[in-house]
Amino acid sequence: MKWSQTFIPTLREVPSDAVIASHRLMFRSGMIRKLANGLFAYLPLGLRSFRKLERIIREEMDATGSQEIKPPVLVPGEIWKESGRWEAMGDELLRVKNRLGGDFVVSPTAEEAFTAILRDELSSYRQLPLSLYQINTKYRDEIRPRYGVMRGREFIMKDAYSYHTDDESLDKTYQDMGRAYRRVFARCGLAVIPVRADSGAMGGSGSEEFMVESEIGDNTLILCRGSEGQPGCDYAANVEKAGCKADPPRPVEEAKAAAASTPAIEAIDTPSVKTIEELCRFLQTDAKSFIKTLIYKALNVEADLSNAPGGANLDRKPVPEAFFAVAIRGDLDVNELKLAAALKASEVMLAADTDVLRLTGAPVGFAGPVGLTGLPVLADWTVTAMNNAVTGALTKDLHYKHVAYGRDFGAWLVADVRTVKTGDRCPVCGGELYEKKGNELGHIFKLGYKYTRTMNLSYLDENGKSQIPTMGSYGIGLDRTLASVIEAHHDEAGIVWPITVAPWQVIIVPVKYNGLVKETAGRIAAALEEAGVEVLLDDRDERPGVKFNDADLIGIPYRLVVGEKNLAGDTPKVELKRRVEKESRLAPVDTVAGELAAMVRRDLAEYR
Amino acid sequence: MKWSQTFIPTLREVPSDAVIASHRLMFRSGMIRKLANGLFAYLPLGLRSFRKLERIIREEMDATGSQEIKPPVLVPGEIWKESGRWEAMGDELLRVKNRLGGDFVVSPTAEEAFTAILRDELSSYRQLPLSLYQINTKYRDEIRPRYGVMRGREFIMKDAYSYHTDDESLDKTYQDMGRAYRRVFARCGLAVIPVRADSGAMGGSGSEEFMVESEIGDNTLILCRGSEGQPGCDYAANVEKAGCKADPPRPVEEAKAAAASTPAIEAIDTPSVKTIEELCRFLQTDAKSFIKTLIYKALNVEADLSNAPGGANLDRKPVPEAFFAVAIRGDLDVNELKLAAALKASEVMLAADTDVLRLTGAPVGFAGPVGLTGLPVLADWTVTAMNNAVTGALTKDLHYKHVAYGRDFGAWLVADVRTVKTGDRCPVCGGELYEKKGNELGHIFKLGYKYTRTMNLSYLDENGKSQIPTMGSYGIGLDRTLASVIEAHHDEAGIVWPITVAPWQVIIVPVKYNGLVKETAGRIAAALEEAGVEVLLDDRDERPGVKFNDADLIGIPYRLVVGEKNLAGDTPKVELKRRVEKESRLAPVDTVAGELAAMVRRDLAEYR
Repeated sequence: MKWSQTFIPTLREVPSDAVIASHRLMFRSGMIRKLANGLFAYLPLGLRSFRKLERIIREEMDATGSQEIKPPVLVPGEIWKESGRWEAMGDELLRVKNRLGGDFVVSPTAEEAFTAILRDELSSYRQLPLSLYQINTKYRDEIRPRYGVMRGREFIMKDAYSYHTDDESLDKTYQDMGRAYRRVFARCGLAVIPVRADSGAMGGSGSEEFMVESEIGDNTLILCRGSEGQPGCDYAANVEKAGCKADPPRPVEEAKAAAASTPAIEAIDTPSVKTIEELCRFLQTDAKSFIKTLIYKALNVEADLSNAPGGANLDRKPVPEAFFAVAIRGDLDVNELKLAAALKASEVMLAADTDVLRLTGAPVGFAGPVGLTGLPVLADWTVTAMNNAVTGALTKDLHYKHVAYGRDFGAWLVADVRTVKTGDRCPVCGGELYEKKGNELGHIFKLGYKYTRTMNLSYLDENGKSQIPTMGSYGIGLDRTLASVIEAHHDEAGIVWPITVAPWQVIIVPVKYNGLVKETAGRIAAALEEAGVEVLLDDRDERPGVKFNDADLIGIPYRLVVGEKNLAGDTPKVELKRRVEKESRLAPVDTVAGELAAMVRRDLAEYR
Repeated sequence: MKWSQTFIPTLREVPSDAVIASHRLMFRSGMIRKLANGLFAYLPLGLRSFRKLERIIREEMDATGSQEIKPPVLVPGEIWKESGRWEAMGDELLRVKNRLGGDFVVSPTAEEAFTAILRDELSSYRQLPLSLYQINTKYRDEIRPRYGVMRGREFIMKDAYSYHTDDESLDKTYQDMGRAYRRVFARCGLAVIPVRADSGAMGGSGSEEFMVESEIGDNTLILCRGSEGQPGCDYAANVEKAGCKADPPRPVEEAKAAAASTPAIEAIDTPSVKTIEELCRFLQTDAKSFIKTLIYKALNVEADLSNAPGGANLDRKPVPEAFFAVAIRGDLDVNELKLAAALKASEVMLAADTDVLRLTGAPVGFAGPVGLTGLPVLADWTVTAMNNAVTGALTKDLHYKHVAYGRDFGAWLVADVRTVKTGDRCPVCGGELYEKKGNELGHIFKLGYKYTRTMNLSYLDENGKSQIPTMGSYGIGLDRTLASVIEAHHDEAGIVWPITVAPWQVIIVPVKYNGLVKETAGRIAAALEEAGVEVLLDDRDERPGVKFNDADLIGIPYRLVVGEKNLAGDTPKVELKRRVEKESRLAPVDTVAGELAAMVRRDLAEYR
């Protein structure tokens, strides 16, 4: 392909809203242009790389036995109402009314559409397992689209859905997908961090997110850096779900004994002191000495509340709504997912100020576990080790000091509900945990019966009995993946494409496109193309400096410079340079095509 | 590929709304499923053919030098407001509001998006001509989607747009596109009728529609069947724009002379007689003896009206609104596009009843050219030959008979404004014209400056002067094209795919999938795949009859039946049958793969 015949509008300037490298470079190289906030057009250069990524994903999906289909982008709102997400999804779901007043959705994901398509098709267990996927346009009405295609409104997603008669079958496909995802990212030259989620409140379901490290990431990851003399293990979790190796809870009797030397509990006036920080200054101590007590409302609680204070009348299961006091060491935060799991609740949220006043008898800021009888107290593991603590005294402007667990208060339930943070210990190897920002590129998820049940998908089993299949869902964002490749592979001069997703594999730059130089450049290009190598020939009438800069900017892995000087002499030569290297070397014109084709093949093989 | 590992849910029943063959067969073969009215999902079988069509189109587009890009499907309403189509397009344009209240459009076509993308990119004449295309999701809010994917709401369109410094350059790309379109359809085995539009009121622009004959077609085509002993020529036009070889108009003096033997004009009472049919019965004659006179309102008239009756004050140019009486032979209809062209008007429409009363002095049904002085009379060519006609007498319940052009009335303008119909003569060869229903699969169009001017796209010419480029647009509907292939290639048993868009090229049907039969079928499949042939192996545990029916239904071009009986003996054989033929023949197992691969290659070459 000749540059003059392609539309690659490279730029020197960077749009002011392009704050990350991939956004800047995709613009400057002419890969994309913006049509509106969060809406981008891929130009020919960008589309070439995009298609290569698409092909990699398609190959790996096909290899798992998943089959491609193409549902519409616009789908009836009806099926989203059936699943409950028409209401639940919030404002990111773009709802559309057609001319007849019908409700439609511009698909942000397709659990509903795939399940609806299968409703009329699935009849027998013999058809299962069944795994289908699409690579298609999606839309998410981001309130603040940013970072170019990294967080756009319209994007392309590969989403697969699988249906199974049992958990073992689902697990097999889930594992196959996980391996396929690892291969996809490896083939793009991306180091991803597979982040496993605890099977928590969902009950038996699993999920794994494929993250890349990114300073602008949406997610906080908890990773293990190991301990002295021991490297980190591969523990990786989203902070929302991360665990840590915490000191085990101290039994009440032990705690009581440990408090023997603690002075008796004592009330202290703390006028106008409400936050932990204010209290620390006031008492000249640190947050670790406080017991923070938060009042939570929990929905659909399935935990046994028969022995809970205030729980006498809570004999329905699940309890639709119940309040809890959660006591935790003052320097830590409550992880609401862990809390919900401990309570077997569908959701937990901080109680309203009026509820706090009603339940604790004091305004927000003065709750504490001592003498709290109106609602169950849940103590985090850390609290059981505290035998000389400060805590609210259930009265405005009053705190207690010398508070000891086991002596001054007990707990209805003791559980690990802390949010993990840097410095905590790895739950796998005991090493030190640290935090990183990450962007999610892919996600595999055992959904279970959530959609198949609400949408009435069923099949007949071996005995002719109607059964509901279990389901998995598996997504990769293509735009975001491509941008992440650039984040991971660039330098100051531009993109440094891995060979697998490079728009072309070789760029030939004639110093001046005429005479022998032109003829030689054309001949090498033809020989390379004959050998199956993708070549961009920069035939523009531009200064060599401009061409070299553009070649670096668009990031083609190999560059051949054809100049008059090196063509003179007995063995005419051209200059060969890898984009990843600083130095070039001379290669004979007669053999360079063969040599380069072999290098390209070897590079491609490395990504297999 | 093994059938058991693909999802091809064939059906015996046909959905009740599937009234055309392609709709029925796409459902029955498991190519598509309906998610909602006008919204379809392509299942694996359908998607395979769809992708082949996509590839054919992509190859032919690339060969014209057009470059693929990928703009978003959702585009800002703002650019549609700039072009004027936000208002003009009507209810088929799906308008969407996002969460921030912004207006968006789910693209039905992309003149606006491509032009908007180029606004910041185009600077110099050196960048032109530039031709870009996309193959992307489109949406048209059809009020009554029908015929499966033939007239759906969401569809995939290949749309290309080209930009030029001058008409010659536009014409070259337009011609290249026309040739590319012919190749695309030929490669799919489709006989298309390229329908050229007259460059009429648009002034210098051209367009060509690529139609396939279809009983459910949206368009009426006028075609030439030739005359006795002479085959039809390739004249083809949309009835809206078709011309015919009409008798030339008779000069007034000649007409006057011809009326010498006609009795004098005479008024006749025609109480309660208004339509031509009623009049025919009343006077016991036929429609050809009547002069039908219709009152039209025309907008933005650029024709010279200085000599027109009632035109004294119509000296502005263009005249924003003017009325005309159009006289035409009673058996013919007025073609409004031709009328608009004759008047150099932007639009013409029948006048309101109140305007007819005001301008003719009589209610609708009694207009006539005799004595009509309040507005200009335009006489169709046919009227100039009438010297003994019946016409309205500008008075309720009154007509004239023995009316002669030239003697009893004249015309301000004589023009050919008739709608062509079966029996008219071909404007090219004089043969007989006939009508056919057609479906439009593609359209190429010289747009001129319509979008580039309103949307302010400009470049600097050789002299550094700002210029506006001229533009072309070129579309193919993929879904409709694929359905049309099936319309053209099927029989009672199912689809009969042309090799180029067949989902697989060969289907192997083992009579019973075990033992030697299984082993042989697998070996032949492997040999064929080795030779680059696409093979579907029907490994299902079904009766042979079911497998044969399904093979016919999904329309694979070649079928190999592997049965125990034919494998016995010294030379084991299999049964080879082309889908287009009734008879099968035996072929030796050892050579059949090579033979078949050669046949497939030959077939493919035929479509090149």
